[in-house]
Amino acid sequence: MYKALGLEDLGINIPLLDGIELAARHGFTGLRMNPEKILEAGIDKVIYAMEKYGIVNAGFNLPDSFKGDEETYKSGLERLPALLEAARKTGGTRATTYILSFSQTLPYDEEYNNIARRLRPYALLLKEYGIFLGMEFLGTKSIYADKKYPFIHTLPEILRLADSIGTGNCGVLLDSYHCYTAGHSMDIVNSLHAFQIGLVHVNDAMPGYALDEIPDSPRMLPGETGMIDVKTFLRNLSRIGYEGPVVVEPFYEEFRTMKDADEIVRKVKQALDSVWPS
Amino acid sequence: MYKALGLEDLGINIPLLDGIELAARHGFTGLRMNPEKILEAGIDKVIYAMEKYGIVNAGFNLPDSFKGDEETYKSGLERLPALLEAARKTGGTRATTYILSFSQTLPYDEEYNNIARRLRPYALLLKEYGIFLGMEFLGTKSIYADKKYPFIHTLPEILRLADSIGTGNCGVLLDSYHCYTAGHSMDIVNSLHAFQIGLVHVNDAMPGYALDEIPDSPRMLPGETGMIDVKTFLRNLSRIGYEGPVVVEPFYEEFRTMKDADEIVRKVKQALDSVWPS
Amino acid sequence: MYKALGLEDLGINIPLLDGIELAARHGFTGLRMNPEKILEAGIDKVIYAMEKYGIVNAGFNLPDSFKGDEETYKSGLERLPALLEAARKTGGTRATTYILSFSQTLPYDEEYNNIARRLRPYALLLKEYGIFLGMEFLGTKSIYADKKYPFIHTLPEILRLADSIGTGNCGVLLDSYHCYTAGHSMDIVNSLHAFQIGLVHVNDAMPGYALDEIPDSPRMLPGETGMIDVKTFLRNLSRIGYEGPVVVEPFYEEFRTMKDADEIVRKVKQALDSVWPS
Amino acid sequence: MYKALGLEDLGINIPLLDGIELAARHGFTGLRMNPEKILEAGIDKVIYAMEKYGIVNAGFNLPDSFKGDEETYKSGLERLPALLEAARKTGGTRATTYILSFSQTLPYDEEYNNIARRLRPYALLLKEYGIFLGMEFLGTKSIYADKKYPFIHTLPEILRLADSIGTGNCGVLLDSYHCYTAGHSMDIVNSLHAFQIGLVHVNDAMPGYALDEIPDSPRMLPGETGMIDVKTFLRNLSRIGYEGPVVVEPFYEEFRTMKDADEIVRKVKQALDSVWPS
Repeated sequence: MYKALGLEDLGINIPLLDGIELAARHGFTGLRMNPEKILEAGIDKVIYAMEKYGIVNAGFNLPDSFKGDEETYKSGLERLPALLEAARKTGGTRATTYILSFSQTLPYDEEYNNIARRLRPYALLLKEYGIFLGMEFLGTKSIYADKKYPFIHTLPEILRLADSIGTGNCGVLLDSYHCYTAGHSMDIVNSLHAFQIGLVHVNDAMPGYALDEIPDSPRMLPGETGMIDVKTFLRNLSRIGYEGPVVVEPFYEEFRTMKDADEIVRKVKQALDSVWPS
Repeated sequence: MYKALGLEDLGINIPLLDGIELAARHGFTGLRMNPEKILEAGIDKVIYAMEKYGIVNAGFNLPDSFKGDEETYKSGLERLPALLEAARKTGGTRATTYILSFSQTLPYDEEYNNIARRLRPYALLLKEYGIFLGMEFLGTKSIYADKKYPFIHTLPEILRLADSIGTGNCGVLLDSYHCYTAGHSMDIVNSLHAFQIGLVHVNDAMPGYALDEIPDSPRMLPGETGMIDVKTFLRNLSRIGYEGPVVVEPFYEEFRTMKDADEIVRKVKQALDSVWPS
Repeated sequence: MYKALGLEDLGINIPLLDGIELAARHGFTGLRMNPEKILEAGIDKVIYAMEKYGIVNAGFNLPDSFKGDEETYKSGLERLPALLEAARKTGGTRATTYILSFSQTLPYDEEYNNIARRLRPYALLLKEYGIFLGMEFLGTKSIYADKKYPFIHTLPEILRLADSIGTGNCGVLLDSYHCYTAGHSMDIVNSLHAFQIGLVHVNDAMPGYALDEIPDSPRMLPGETGMIDVKTFLRNLSRIGYEGPVVVEPFYEEFRTMKDADEIVRKVKQALDSVWPS
Repeated sequence: MYKALGLEDLGINIPLLDGIELAARHGFTGLRMNPEKILEAGIDKVIYAMEKYGIVNAGFNLPDSFKGDEETYKSGLERLPALLEAARKTGGTRATTYILSFSQTLPYDEEYNNIARRLRPYALLLKEYGIFLGMEFLGTKSIYADKKYPFIHTLPEILRLADSIGTGNCGVLLDSYHCYTAGHSMDIVNSLHAFQIGLVHVNDAMPGYALDEIPDSPRMLPGETGMIDVKTFLRNLSRIGYEGPVVVEPFYEEFRTMKDADEIVRKVKQALDSVWPS
């Protein structure tokens, strides 16, 4: 289990090579690396910078094309090999995506089959490149409460979807916020195997809301309010032997007005250190 | 990718709790933990020591019972859940074993089916506990040269066996020595996916032997003779995104007469540091 | 797709060898063969009779031991290899079981994991013998309506369970009655692949009930009332290329008082012929 | 296990609808149906004829595009969904192909990985349509004897390839001729599970050749010379519970000069009947 930085998660928009240096400067072990940005910077230059600064590739978000119309879906599939090649050559083995917790058109079982059918070719392609897919469930009730058909929004459901895709390289992106809003105890981590986890997000929740009404954002930095017991969450992950990256994904109001990347990252790193086990 | 210590690999026989402290004292991140020793020491005490010293469980050898007669095989299977429980509760997710490179009784295809059939229930049980199985191929020709039926002794063969077991949680224990003696280039690493690797062994070879005649032991410490390009081996592992433990398994003559564990471990750590990429 | 006879399904209790002759006498292609009865009769004698009368093994019910307490569960697993050996040697490749549609102790997700965990070793053992497991969902609402925790009672759910077992040899036992009572259209067959189906049950329903209140038994013979469109059901199965057995499972009141096996089987065969496509 | 006719295997070139009638006229249960020919004839008309004459779809050969250059490979993949749709809608669940037993460019392990990598997307697409892939090994030594790199030519090897593809829907096309020429006993059938077999070919061998020198064609009709014990071959298939099609693939000299399809098919059917068990 190691600390990783996600630039996009913090709203920081700088070149990838600068991001590698930034991550190293603040003591992170890994950096999330968008494959499009790897290709822009040049694979060899990225590898050079990674080895110079001792930074590993903490994975990337799968393009959302698999959620689009048939044409988007297909062109997304066609673009994918080039992106996976870039990830693979820089040691990126952890792809992630989120699964929307509702559908406005299809009832649960139909949406389930639809998503599984669409993800299968993506998952197979990922497998060809040795890449695991972590799928995030969105536990927050306010996202799906007033929608036509509620869909997957708990851990057991997303694990079933991973099984149904059936390619053997799918699991969960585990986010402390969505565990909390889904009503899962932090000990639900102990029901998971390390190899089922593609990525871990940590963050805290605003006080003063009932679970049924808490908004999906803004969120707080890990350890900030203590609404979510992130320390226990991470200790459990360590005890089950999780070896992958942990990223702060705060949707943090204050960061929107901050211009200095170093200042943002310093604050994030301090928050992460404050909840890191032992 | 992190540095791990294997006490049994070095002939050091001390209590597990002392081993945890020893590993930490010399700057290792992980320690190989025999589940029988975890049970002896007590799971809670082991977890306490791991968290106190910041040491993770770098996995363990599967008991050899699956290679024995039918009775040994069955009693091995019966003992296994208790051991896997101990591994699982301390974050041990990487089991390993080696596959003998010959048979004195069965031709290749029959031995292949026999081994796959016998390993399947072990692999399934491991899967139930979220544990991966890395299988070591033995490339050294002098092991199998004069035996009745040569068996698996290259990387492609062991990967096929992993496929044939068919449980999805099997792969390779990659040893630089066996890659070298099998005639594989260090770049063969690049043909692997990170999630196919259960464990990595590093070591160097004695000079002065043709590949066909080199004995399986003694071996040298990584970097000692330069016969094996361990640096390239490890750099490649890092580039494909391998996140797991790297252990020195030297079969080193000199250690047999050394009594001081600290002295042995210091020497091993220096050798490992000397070939560690970046 | 072929016609098969199930003695137990009709309440006929005669020796297996007589059953083989009975099935042949009435023009069936296959007979369901309880492995315990195969062992009683002697495997060689059963094979001899099968080849003499041209009858194939249409599969068998898995013992219910996997639903019992831990001791029953384990002893069931221990007994299983002898039974599977008997099935395998007589060409029995299709095991079946039903999944209860409620639990009095565990909520859905926990019961789901519990059942999947328990079935996995059974499914693996079946796989070792090349046997497929068809799991029946019980669609009838009156079975689960007043129970504490409703559980799997539709086709999509049972298919997800098959995926979650994850051994690749699990699918559905498709019963026209349970499709009907679950509210599935007969065209739901077209959403299935032939290799997902372990067995097919056909039967008809009593008239005069709302779907929500219809009892699970008695049922009617296929084609008898026309409440269930068994013809379309079977035509669809043929069109998707289903090659396996079709068995009448009537829970038919009248049969309880009939003593003559030939009379019962003649009536069942006539009913089956009346709905058989083309 | 049922008797099926393969027009292409006999060199008979007539419209598919005529073929369906021809198969029925001679008492076959199934017909091999080239998906391109299904599309030509029209799916609805084919289904109508199948139901009228009581003929089932006994599967089809996968286009050889996966063996071509990269462009052929890709365009083959693009064409595939339309073909699989045609197969699927007419109940065709059994695709087949043969694996060449040599390579002129790649050594064994590289060719193995190359073939597995290429077949994976095909196999996945087949899986999406619920179709199994039976791969034929070519046992005849004269095919590969003077080639640069011998490749898969035995049953154990082709089963390993099926495992390595890893999609769970691959197995063997078992041909009595190739079993014979590979030196396998007819009892090797008993080592297979029914669900591992995609199709069965039967035929006999010319007398007067050593196994090492026998040509791959011509061959004889099943039962004609008795060089191959086709009766035992088929009895074993029946005993392991094989439910699929059996096709005569004779490469029979005499047929080349015969013009009358009925005459050819009559002769083939007589030969098949003569070796059919019980």
